[in-house]
Amino acid sequence: MSTSSQGPGDNRSETTSETAQLVSHDDLASTSNYTQLNRSINYQDPLEDEFEGSHGVRRRNTVQKIEPGSTNILSAKFESLDYDTCENHPLLDEERKRGYAFVIWKDITRWFIFLLIGIITALIAFVIDVCIEEFSEIKYRELKKSVDAHLPHRMYVPYLLWVLSNICIVFIGSVLVAYVEPVAAGSGIPQVKCYLNGVKVPRVVRIKTLFVKTIGVITAVVGGLAGGKEGPMIHSGAVVAAGISQGKSTTFNKDFKIFHYFREDHEKRDFVSGGAAAGVSAAFGAPIGGVLFSLEEGTSFWNQALTWRTFFGTVVSTFTLNCALSAYHGRAGELSYPGLLNLGKMEPFPFQFYELPVFMFFGAVGGCLGALWNHINYKLSVFRIRYITAPWLRVVEACLVAAASATVGFLMMYALNDCRPLGEDPTKVPLQLYCADGEYNALAAVWFQTPEASVRSFLHNPIGSYNPWSILVFVSCYFLLSAWTFGLAVSSGLFIPNLLCGAAWGRLLAILIQLMAPKNTIINPGKYALVGAAAQLGGVVRMTISLTVIIIETTGQISNALPIIITLVVAKWVGDFFNEGIYDIHIQLAGVPLLPWEPPPLAHNVYASEVMSHPVFTLRTIENVGHVVELLKLVSYNGFPVVDPPLADDQEVHTYKRLRGLILRSQLIVLLQNKIYNENEHENANTTWASFNVDMNMFRKEYPRYPSINDLEISDWEKTCTIDLRPFMNPSPYTLPTRASLPRLFRLFRALGLRHLPIVNDVNEVVGMVTRKDIARYRVWRHHFSMGMEELVLSSEI
Amino acid sequence: MSTSSQGPGDNRSETTSETAQLVSHDDLASTSNYTQLNRSINYQDPLEDEFEGSHGVRRRNTVQKIEPGSTNILSAKFESLDYDTCENHPLLDEERKRGYAFVIWKDITRWFIFLLIGIITALIAFVIDVCIEEFSEIKYRELKKSVDAHLPHRMYVPYLLWVLSNICIVFIGSVLVAYVEPVAAGSGIPQVKCYLNGVKVPRVVRIKTLFVKTIGVITAVVGGLAGGKEGPMIHSGAVVAAGISQGKSTTFNKDFKIFHYFREDHEKRDFVSGGAAAGVSAAFGAPIGGVLFSLEEGTSFWNQALTWRTFFGTVVSTFTLNCALSAYHGRAGELSYPGLLNLGKMEPFPFQFYELPVFMFFGAVGGCLGALWNHINYKLSVFRIRYITAPWLRVVEACLVAAASATVGFLMMYALNDCRPLGEDPTKVPLQLYCADGEYNALAAVWFQTPEASVRSFLHNPIGSYNPWSILVFVSCYFLLSAWTFGLAVSSGLFIPNLLCGAAWGRLLAILIQLMAPKNTIINPGKYALVGAAAQLGGVVRMTISLTVIIIETTGQISNALPIIITLVVAKWVGDFFNEGIYDIHIQLAGVPLLPWEPPPLAHNVYASEVMSHPVFTLRTIENVGHVVELLKLVSYNGFPVVDPPLADDQEVHTYKRLRGLILRSQLIVLLQNKIYNENEHENANTTWASFNVDMNMFRKEYPRYPSINDLEISDWEKTCTIDLRPFMNPSPYTLPTRASLPRLFRLFRALGLRHLPIVNDVNEVVGMVTRKDIARYRVWRHHFSMGMEELVLSSEI
Repeated sequence: MSTSSQGPGDNRSETTSETAQLVSHDDLASTSNYTQLNRSINYQDPLEDEFEGSHGVRRRNTVQKIEPGSTNILSAKFESLDYDTCENHPLLDEERKRGYAFVIWKDITRWFIFLLIGIITALIAFVIDVCIEEFSEIKYRELKKSVDAHLPHRMYVPYLLWVLSNICIVFIGSVLVAYVEPVAAGSGIPQVKCYLNGVKVPRVVRIKTLFVKTIGVITAVVGGLAGGKEGPMIHSGAVVAAGISQGKSTTFNKDFKIFHYFREDHEKRDFVSGGAAAGVSAAFGAPIGGVLFSLEEGTSFWNQALTWRTFFGTVVSTFTLNCALSAYHGRAGELSYPGLLNLGKMEPFPFQFYELPVFMFFGAVGGCLGALWNHINYKLSVFRIRYITAPWLRVVEACLVAAASATVGFLMMYALNDCRPLGEDPTKVPLQLYCADGEYNALAAVWFQTPEASVRSFLHNPIGSYNPWSILVFVSCYFLLSAWTFGLAVSSGLFIPNLLCGAAWGRLLAILIQLMAPKNTIINPGKYALVGAAAQLGGVVRMTISLTVIIIETTGQISNALPIIITLVVAKWVGDFFNEGIYDIHIQLAGVPLLPWEPPPLAHNVYASEVMSHPVFTLRTIENVGHVVELLKLVSYNGFPVVDPPLADDQEVHTYKRLRGLILRSQLIVLLQNKIYNENEHENANTTWASFNVDMNMFRKEYPRYPSINDLEISDWEKTCTIDLRPFMNPSPYTLPTRASLPRLFRLFRALGLRHLPIVNDVNEVVGMVTRKDIARYRVWRHHFSMGMEELVLSSEI
Repeated sequence: MSTSSQGPGDNRSETTSETAQLVSHDDLASTSNYTQLNRSINYQDPLEDEFEGSHGVRRRNTVQKIEPGSTNILSAKFESLDYDTCENHPLLDEERKRGYAFVIWKDITRWFIFLLIGIITALIAFVIDVCIEEFSEIKYRELKKSVDAHLPHRMYVPYLLWVLSNICIVFIGSVLVAYVEPVAAGSGIPQVKCYLNGVKVPRVVRIKTLFVKTIGVITAVVGGLAGGKEGPMIHSGAVVAAGISQGKSTTFNKDFKIFHYFREDHEKRDFVSGGAAAGVSAAFGAPIGGVLFSLEEGTSFWNQALTWRTFFGTVVSTFTLNCALSAYHGRAGELSYPGLLNLGKMEPFPFQFYELPVFMFFGAVGGCLGALWNHINYKLSVFRIRYITAPWLRVVEACLVAAASATVGFLMMYALNDCRPLGEDPTKVPLQLYCADGEYNALAAVWFQTPEASVRSFLHNPIGSYNPWSILVFVSCYFLLSAWTFGLAVSSGLFIPNLLCGAAWGRLLAILIQLMAPKNTIINPGKYALVGAAAQLGGVVRMTISLTVIIIETTGQISNALPIIITLVVAKWVGDFFNEGIYDIHIQLAGVPLLPWEPPPLAHNVYASEVMSHPVFTLRTIENVGHVVELLKLVSYNGFPVVDPPLADDQEVHTYKRLRGLILRSQLIVLLQNKIYNENEHENANTTWASFNVDMNMFRKEYPRYPSINDLEISDWEKTCTIDLRPFMNPSPYTLPTRASLPRLFRLFRALGLRHLPIVNDVNEVVGMVTRKDIARYRVWRHHFSMGMEELVLSSEI
């Protein structure tokens, strides 16, 4: 993920961070406050010492030098989304005023939005598909003309033409990605996954990103890179969903004044999850696979109503795309183009009992190759993070890969003169090259079309269409090329290149099996090509259920389910033995504080007192405006516990204050911006609030980008006023005691999608705060039959 | 669900109930304690009055007469499962001692258990299938002989023979269900759904239940009832999973001393969820559908590792059953029998744009008919609850239905002499009856085979196989028969009867469409029969995603996905307009405190102080044994907050005590049973605990049925000892303040699978306790375009 190269000045309050708490914790570590705190915590659990230090955490020294490209770093840059509803008085007021009619109205609106998401996602998919198809055909037709014209001795002319056209096309997309919107690079799936996990990835769901992504993916595929258009479709769907559901666009600075009641993190996340599913559905013609994808990769809570709407969205998306593509291909009404990726109708392949070990073997090969692919890509990504940081360097690299792709293709078809008789070949531009009349160059056919069409060729071409040596050379080169391509500053996915590699080696193995098999046995190479494709892709991305369903839906054959399931399961097992899935590798490289599915095992003896950040900055229930402004300027935290003011007759000095609620930075900013002050400090809170005529829309207006505290003009007189925070704070935040264990923190945090979790002592006084990064810091690794827990380093450098 | 007729004396501590708290709350309502409590709560939220009474809850008077068979009652009988890990010292100790090797070992064991679950579930499915097939063939062959022998005038002989054979066979199963294990009645899906939701349905996952279920389903189907074997398979899978994973059987009183580390509610629930999925997979040959079923109907949290293992289990199950059935049918190695329900390979049916409204129409018809079916079954169920309560009455009713089924079938084939030429008809025992030679009676063919085979006939028989009037009469009768059958004291499901009804009216509509269609158009009746079957079933059960996938996997045609999805979606919408799905109706009738997916809307102004039960019985950290024993005998609660003892120098009298932890009745029982006492009251807790050599296995040994407090013998001397509860209690239970709202309670409860939630005041003193029933009491209804919230009545009568 290339969010590291984001431009400054673009992200107002977004760069403020919860984890600045950690810095402050280090800064203040030597104060008496801290020492006192620690003592009091130890006192509260007299048994803690017994377990101390026994939990096998590989503790890393926090002053350790941070190497860019390590996978044991958490970036302090990422913020969390806040899925917890703040039940303050304006919300209760709105509920009371609007009643059940509003609940039903919101429900109907949600369905309507999902309809729009499905339709618009499908239309974007349609535009991308048609552009790629048209432009590719023009490009390869011109190249073929040039080849035919310059045969046999001046082959450098078409070669140069090819290289030049690739570079030019890729250059456009790469410049857009590198300079305009770096977050649009790659497939977008890791970014969407992080977003759905609850991490605010800056600018990931903006219209500008969608625009760059659309142009980017067209240029990448037409430019001949080893990339696909499916991953970007998923990202596009997510952006569409976020855009529509909010009824406004920040890029165009336009507020349509609709759907403002969906302007909160929780609702937006639900729509984005549906949008990603609609994207999968459009990309693969797989409505069920889409729903499963968004569940497997994103959501943690299976919400039936949401799943049900998501399903509706994916069906609409497939259906709309199907209509549009059928009309485009002149077969309106036939509905024969369900998705972008069309692998062609596979024949059902009956399989025998003894073939199961063969499928497992394919799975194992896919797992190994997938792990290798991931490792190569990981090494390359580290190299990129360390050395290819400037945008111009990234553009140059993309153009280099574009040139390399053309070169490899050209060398291959030039050197391996694999001639096959022209038959019912599905390729659009058969190239004769040095072959005899009536023959065509089989390798040129693979290169002179989009990768997707090549996958189809491997799956469907009849027996004997390929020379095994050609396939071997092709697989080796394409494997490396595709691993090199993923992570470039272009928008392209990895599904198609991996399917292509897998289909190729699957076909190669089928030829070998045919050679070894007893006579009169006819091996169906298409069947093994499909199994190989599934194995390779499964080995790289490590999805199982959703991928199975996607492949089944794409090939239109449910009877192939069992072989594909077995293959994918084995591929995942074998791959997991070596490393993580490619998306997780990229997420770790970016240092995103992604929360896994389960709390770390054996961590019941890591206590909240150890995990939390402290001391905590708190606000009093009725607080001085000047103090609020100073605090917001001083620290960059996003949530502040609201505590009881000290009692007038209380003689004792309290170190900690009693928790009354939690208020967010964004809420404070809105209160300051709208000047919801009291002049008189002791005025009744309730009356004041009513007299201000505050409603929820005041808070929603600025969502999701609130002004910075420095943008607000607050006069000195105003600073002497007070704010009553009680009507606006979350009155009952979830809390845990200091003696709660890490798994307990984790479960509460993960299941409820929290952002701030105040840690209290035995008398409900705030002693610390836990945010996402405090928990994500503890990571479990398991490879090569062993496992353990490591503590990641928090860094603001990456 | 027939758990209401459970025998006494069988359920030791199971009948103790959290909701006895409510009773005690009513009893003690007039004490000063209660009044004082209420006042203090009001004080804590000065703004509460403002919102009081505005939330539109339809408050029912609690002294209202409870009518058996109402749907607005919660039974006090059901207990909850406890998914929250109790992080006490024995657990930490075990973790520390065993380390990561144990984590890995547990993981491998889980996979192994899922393998066993898949295999054994498949074998049970195999036995059921083979028995039903063999016995049915014998039965119908003998009946045919009798018919042929007594034609044309002494037809009462075969009729009586038919009635008698039906009654005899059904009698066996019905007696078993009514007298031996009432929980084995019906499909078992509602029970499994409740279990997965976190409700402890007594005896639902015992071996005895499995045994009765297996015999019951064979007798029900062979006995000619309008029931299927698929629902019971799901229940069987769940029982198998629970049995294997616990490594012991209560029915056989046998402990295999394995897998004892899985003896807790949380782990067991995960296995049961996987077992139910394996059951679906075996029933329908639908591994993906199985995973989705257990997600859609049961689990709330999408746990990737669990889903992944579940998928493995479902694949193993399908595969094993496939092997076994293929071998049985003499085609070993061919793997052509993936599931019990075999609808036969459907041809892919290409559809046109203009057919979509037709599918929607089918969906609407299915929705209406499904809602009607549910309504009829609901009325019958209420009648049964009120009047047919004695076991012998239930047996008589089952036999009556068996006789009625035979009578209806006989009358129909006798009165409607629908003759068709003998062709490639798939029926095994074609009956000539009054037809000419070379012809057979089409209706007799429908009745003289299992319902499953009849569904196949409707789907696959060529055009013109049926007279529309015959179908109309058949649909009307079978519709009523099947609605009457579901809920009888027999083990049978509703999938097949509804598929059969739907396929029949689908075929009928296809004939009508053919009549209205322009000439030269040939309508494929099988296509509409399938769509009708899906619509009817969808209208009854209201599942969408899993049902779509199940139907696709069963028919082996992914290309039919879109029509089926559209049909199911419309069927659900139309059905939901009138009433709930059939499973939910039965769950409501049984008064199960099922938690829905979402908290009630507009309930932010219902506060914990209103929801909670109070006052609460608490225990001190170091408690007198005699006091513990008395408390356990006095009340039937299952969880007790552990609080600080009053300080010696504390002059003030505290009404509430500070929360230190939570201890379960079962833990106290184990402590008492093992005599973990201190003679000296002030001994150090930590040393004591170590000196007793307590480990987790002590707590696991008795799981899930602990002895009752009355079974323990505790001497008077022992009652003067103390127990230190600190090492054994859950030291950091999740809590919420009194001002927390109902949605907040709900989310915490639902997401984390809690059983007890202590409610604390501002200084962390326990003032109340919330359990599942306190939350499930608030239920949202939405029908006929309106919605609202109602408060259910808690009753110990049903």
